[in-house]
Amino acid sequence: MLKVAGKLPVSVKLLYEGEEEIGSPGLTAWLPQNKERLACDLVLVSDTSMLGPGQPSIDYGLRGLTYCQVDLKGPAGDLHSGGFGGAVANPINVLAGLLAALKDENQRVTIPGFYDDVLDLDEQERANFGTLPEGSAEVLADSGAPATCGEAGFTTAQRLGARPSLDANGIWGGFSGTGAKTVLPAEAGMKVSMRLVPNQDPQTISDLFRAHLEKIVPETVKMTITDLHNGHPFLCPLSEPALQKAAQSLTEVFGKKCLFVRGGGSIPIVAEMARELKRPVVLMGFGLLSEQAHAPNEHFDLGNFHLGLKASLTYLRRLAD
Amino acid sequence: MLKVAGKLPVSVKLLYEGEEEIGSPGLTAWLPQNKERLACDLVLVSDTSMLGPGQPSIDYGLRGLTYCQVDLKGPAGDLHSGGFGGAVANPINVLAGLLAALKDENQRVTIPGFYDDVLDLDEQERANFGTLPEGSAEVLADSGAPATCGEAGFTTAQRLGARPSLDANGIWGGFSGTGAKTVLPAEAGMKVSMRLVPNQDPQTISDLFRAHLEKIVPETVKMTITDLHNGHPFLCPLSEPALQKAAQSLTEVFGKKCLFVRGGGSIPIVAEMARELKRPVVLMGFGLLSEQAHAPNEHFDLGNFHLGLKASLTYLRRLAD
Repeated sequence: MLKVAGKLPVSVKLLYEGEEEIGSPGLTAWLPQNKERLACDLVLVSDTSMLGPGQPSIDYGLRGLTYCQVDLKGPAGDLHSGGFGGAVANPINVLAGLLAALKDENQRVTIPGFYDDVLDLDEQERANFGTLPEGSAEVLADSGAPATCGEAGFTTAQRLGARPSLDANGIWGGFSGTGAKTVLPAEAGMKVSMRLVPNQDPQTISDLFRAHLEKIVPETVKMTITDLHNGHPFLCPLSEPALQKAAQSLTEVFGKKCLFVRGGGSIPIVAEMARELKRPVVLMGFGLLSEQAHAPNEHFDLGNFHLGLKASLTYLRRLAD
Repeated sequence: MLKVAGKLPVSVKLLYEGEEEIGSPGLTAWLPQNKERLACDLVLVSDTSMLGPGQPSIDYGLRGLTYCQVDLKGPAGDLHSGGFGGAVANPINVLAGLLAALKDENQRVTIPGFYDDVLDLDEQERANFGTLPEGSAEVLADSGAPATCGEAGFTTAQRLGARPSLDANGIWGGFSGTGAKTVLPAEAGMKVSMRLVPNQDPQTISDLFRAHLEKIVPETVKMTITDLHNGHPFLCPLSEPALQKAAQSLTEVFGKKCLFVRGGGSIPIVAEMARELKRPVVLMGFGLLSEQAHAPNEHFDLGNFHLGLKASLTYLRRLAD
């Protein structure tokens, strides 16, 4: 645009972030000290996904996150499962019991108070969800899972964007090599994360998680819980003009009406920027859920790369009008 | 004995086994073809533990074993837990649910039919258990576990020797490195073994395990169960003269009355030899449960090594009388 038009239609400040995957600890600390330098009319972030190929969309909400590690210690060392099996607690079995107890048969999280602060959808948002695909077909196609599943009473799109979730991100203990080893292991552990929605507070949920596990863990093991990562959820009002102009730009460039989505992922710095700079944050991203984010072979569609550039320039022009 | 006395008091045939830890597949196949070569009055095996330091004991029973691997596959590849969390099943969460569902709150195995063939203790065995320590103090000391636990209604000694058990020997899935990775993994797996008691049949129990899991596994994952290892339980009548003479030998050499124990471990070839050779099998072993069998730093007490040699020679002399 500088080469062709000689100048940009609006002033642009660029902020680069390289720590997003570990929760942006540096930027979070730096932000409040640099508010004047960052003074602006709006913040534009490009780190989200489109609803599908050829279907432009804007995430007007993001889920927050709290991420913990749970370690259990039973016997002093690994034991022979013949010599001790049936007479001492097995940390793997206990861990499985704890994890299984965190959801009920309706896939609702059982931690007392977990849903207390969840903001119910208002009429405008409910109507907006009606403009979106139900989501199951897209999730099945993008994930290759045999079936969808989730909290009873909600659509797939709502489960992803408007409802919190709880997932084990890793589990370990004992022998995992080829063949059989009859060990009763001394230790087992897991990583558990919860995606949070407005107005859940990550530290509050983390504390509830800890208190609940400490209540239900049996005395046959010693448990340690380590907080690894917290991030706030984010929500931009659908009526925000900067959001609407971004949608118009996407509609124009992609030739298809832009939809508004409650995103399932988390970008902790987005909530921090909204809070510190007190300006709208617009999420115009061009990824696809099928692009294997956080997995081997992560990639980015080149067509969306070029259309994304066009849409970003179009947005700058519309903002100047 | 050959050097000092010039001859052995009885004929001795030596049979060496190097595959015990993988269930003796070679010896099990070789045994029926070599019955004449192995013809004998009794079989003596030294692969068991004493009840404690200075306390000689004989395992007159052994638990059998069935050992399986359970693999779950959910999505086609690892997913971002923000993009999909709450809308597709997480194989780790599902696996934990399956494992947790295998025992109830009384630590009883919930597989239908699991206890059907368990031989109840008769009066003689019940009286014999009365001569033994209850077992909890020994298990706590040898394992370093914070507490004992097990099937309601049974002592620790009974839980170990006279009751079947179910343990996860390993579990894996997702991210287990340092820090946080927000992955919703494609796969998770576990190794599960069940120690069996007379008259449970390992293949029958393995089939019940498989059928039960296939019934309760949700359609949101694909499950594969692999049989890894089977072994029959073993029981020698307490009245067997060869057993009583072995106990007398141990009492004489250790200077303390030998006790009769239902061992918690499994030696599959013992049940095979009893069945094929139709002779009593006597288990005179000198290990200790504190010697970290199957764990780092496994060791063997030198005092018991020397007393064990003496007791074995004493037994040969008593058998000749």
